[in-house]
Amino acid sequence: MIRINENYLKLQASYLFSDIAKRVAVFQQQNTDIEVIKLGIGDVTFALPQACIQEFHRAIDEMAVDSSFRGYGPEQGYDFLRTKIAENDFKRCSEPIPPDEIFVSDGAKCDTGNFQEIFNDAIKIAIPDPVYPVYVDTNVMAGRSGLFKAGRYDGFLYLESGWDNNFVPNPPDVPVDLIYLCFPNNPTGAVITKTQLQEWVDYAREHRALILFDAAYEAFIRDDRLPHSIYEIDGAREVAIEFRSFSKTAGFTGTRCAYTVVPKNCMGFDAQGKGHSLHNLWNRRHTTKFNSVSYPVQRAATAVYTEAGQVQVKKRIDYYLNNAAIIRQAVTDLGFKCVGGVNSPYIWIDGQRDSWEFFDLLLNKAGVVCTPGAGFGLSGKPFIRISAFNTLENVQKAMGRVKNALA
Amino acid sequence: MIRINENYLKLQASYLFSDIAKRVAVFQQQNTDIEVIKLGIGDVTFALPQACIQEFHRAIDEMAVDSSFRGYGPEQGYDFLRTKIAENDFKRCSEPIPPDEIFVSDGAKCDTGNFQEIFNDAIKIAIPDPVYPVYVDTNVMAGRSGLFKAGRYDGFLYLESGWDNNFVPNPPDVPVDLIYLCFPNNPTGAVITKTQLQEWVDYAREHRALILFDAAYEAFIRDDRLPHSIYEIDGAREVAIEFRSFSKTAGFTGTRCAYTVVPKNCMGFDAQGKGHSLHNLWNRRHTTKFNSVSYPVQRAATAVYTEAGQVQVKKRIDYYLNNAAIIRQAVTDLGFKCVGGVNSPYIWIDGQRDSWEFFDLLLNKAGVVCTPGAGFGLSGKPFIRISAFNTLENVQKAMGRVKNALA
Repeated sequence: MIRINENYLKLQASYLFSDIAKRVAVFQQQNTDIEVIKLGIGDVTFALPQACIQEFHRAIDEMAVDSSFRGYGPEQGYDFLRTKIAENDFKRCSEPIPPDEIFVSDGAKCDTGNFQEIFNDAIKIAIPDPVYPVYVDTNVMAGRSGLFKAGRYDGFLYLESGWDNNFVPNPPDVPVDLIYLCFPNNPTGAVITKTQLQEWVDYAREHRALILFDAAYEAFIRDDRLPHSIYEIDGAREVAIEFRSFSKTAGFTGTRCAYTVVPKNCMGFDAQGKGHSLHNLWNRRHTTKFNSVSYPVQRAATAVYTEAGQVQVKKRIDYYLNNAAIIRQAVTDLGFKCVGGVNSPYIWIDGQRDSWEFFDLLLNKAGVVCTPGAGFGLSGKPFIRISAFNTLENVQKAMGRVKNALA
Repeated sequence: MIRINENYLKLQASYLFSDIAKRVAVFQQQNTDIEVIKLGIGDVTFALPQACIQEFHRAIDEMAVDSSFRGYGPEQGYDFLRTKIAENDFKRCSEPIPPDEIFVSDGAKCDTGNFQEIFNDAIKIAIPDPVYPVYVDTNVMAGRSGLFKAGRYDGFLYLESGWDNNFVPNPPDVPVDLIYLCFPNNPTGAVITKTQLQEWVDYAREHRALILFDAAYEAFIRDDRLPHSIYEIDGAREVAIEFRSFSKTAGFTGTRCAYTVVPKNCMGFDAQGKGHSLHNLWNRRHTTKFNSVSYPVQRAATAVYTEAGQVQVKKRIDYYLNNAAIIRQAVTDLGFKCVGGVNSPYIWIDGQRDSWEFFDLLLNKAGVVCTPGAGFGLSGKPFIRISAFNTLENVQKAMGRVKNALA
């Protein structure tokens, strides 16, 4: 009899985005004259950078001719892309990241979801709250949690982010084995300082733990004191994996390209305490279950590192950061406390009421869609997330409406 | 302490393709005047079909303009592609496959590798021998095997394919829970009849087992009596998942697009014997750990179903099938017994000697590279695989050389 993985039965159905869609549909039916402005989902708005488009087309022309056609590529990604990543994205680290420590993939979602496979099922997991749900759900699927009770899964250690720690949790005072960190944070928009990140690295070294560092939003950092990469921190290479993405940097959410850094001296341990290279384990996983990213997509991603690509990407991110500043200013003017919106496309707003109630208020009084914080965990219940991924015009219009409605 | 998944330590290192590369390099150094002809790897040779190229470019033009740009798409794939697949690829099935039973993905390798995640770790696996190694390795990683001893993993039931069963194993006389079948087969090129496949479906229904049916090579079937899909078999929808790919059909090995059919009435069971929809479980897995295929790639794949696309794809496959026939005739003329090469791009040749010995013979005497059967399992040891993925000129030249060397 084909027995299912019963851990899946523990998973809570996520109706967040379908619930949002339903409420928006009802509102739109009753208010056909109002144009709803969506500042909910974390998706980009604008066309791919022109440099990427050109290179994308060029690579497809190559695929149209037998002599330049490419079939299976290296599972880890083409050297032309890995080299550019290594040369450009880790300049601020004291030790260079060599190209062969970079695994190109089709998404940070996939990589953050899959990486846990190379670990034992019995490890103790520390998960932020609020959190990007993929970290949680993939560990539930793997059987690392107990049942869901009162808003949380038994067995995980939750790292609460709130006003008391300025949305950057400190290392716990008990040992854990695997730690998920994401900075600039989704959903809160909070950033971590080098000193704070050093504490996490020190904790991981002390406990022989591992940090999975999700840096999908690092391109939004404009404050030079903040770390773009965990490898800017002393000792991090031995205890940290880093996830990066072209999604929010270059608008690749629908084009799909990302990468993961797995340093060669980063170790996991067997039952006898013997160290094993996580690089080798992940390489085995990656080459067995994945067949690399579409060749033209890898070429398009490489164009991000051209001079024109860098200018175009920076311009786009500056634009979103300007939106974020406008949103932050508007909600601050209204008297709400918030975090994020600086060095981040997300603004996390303390509504001091139930997040769905606040959601309904903004929808019904201003025709603006946000994301209720409850969708990101128990700690998110009094918060909403507003995203800067929209046009300046829409952001201005939305904030004007919100001010009129709530002032 | 971050404990590793120690099942990875059971995995045998695969040196197959690196060993091949090393031997070829040595030969090439010693014989700089001989052009080595590679008929080893199962990769395609020719440019993408023109219909796909045009649609690929068109989709990138959409991505270049804000108003038509696409960000995150539905994780299961766009309806425009799923609808075309449903309309075209399952015409011969008595019941239609609806679009929403189709999950678009970036490769049949990924899907055949990942699908086992939704099952219990204790299920009994039946694996063909010889076999595409991904089925084996992913189950070893999940902990469903014992140690590797004398060429095989403890705990799996191996389905041997050889001359006694004409390379189509019969259902075993003991119960198993999960069965991997691949027809037209990689590596043997063998095909399965409807009667034989019906026996497997009946077996699965009797034992409440599940068949994972890898149909990546179905486009090579030219014999109308053979099933293209397992869903042509009565009762299969309840006990079978089917994997398809654009890789070998339309040359997408480097472009990456595939799909998996998960019928809604296909069930797995919990410890109490209660049925659960595998469609729902896979949907949860797919949406949690995957973010769909690049939008322009999905558009390019859709072009396979245009009139021009169908003509171009058929022409390409006819070309490879002609190569296969030439290879099959040549090795038969030399007195070797073989299977495949008809309705399949692979020819599986009984060398009646160690496969590496035969490999070296073909390399050193004819400058032709094949794949030693030992790389596909214990049963492959006296065989080699020759692939039809090359130009007609190279295939003719290679077979001429082989005839001269061995006649």
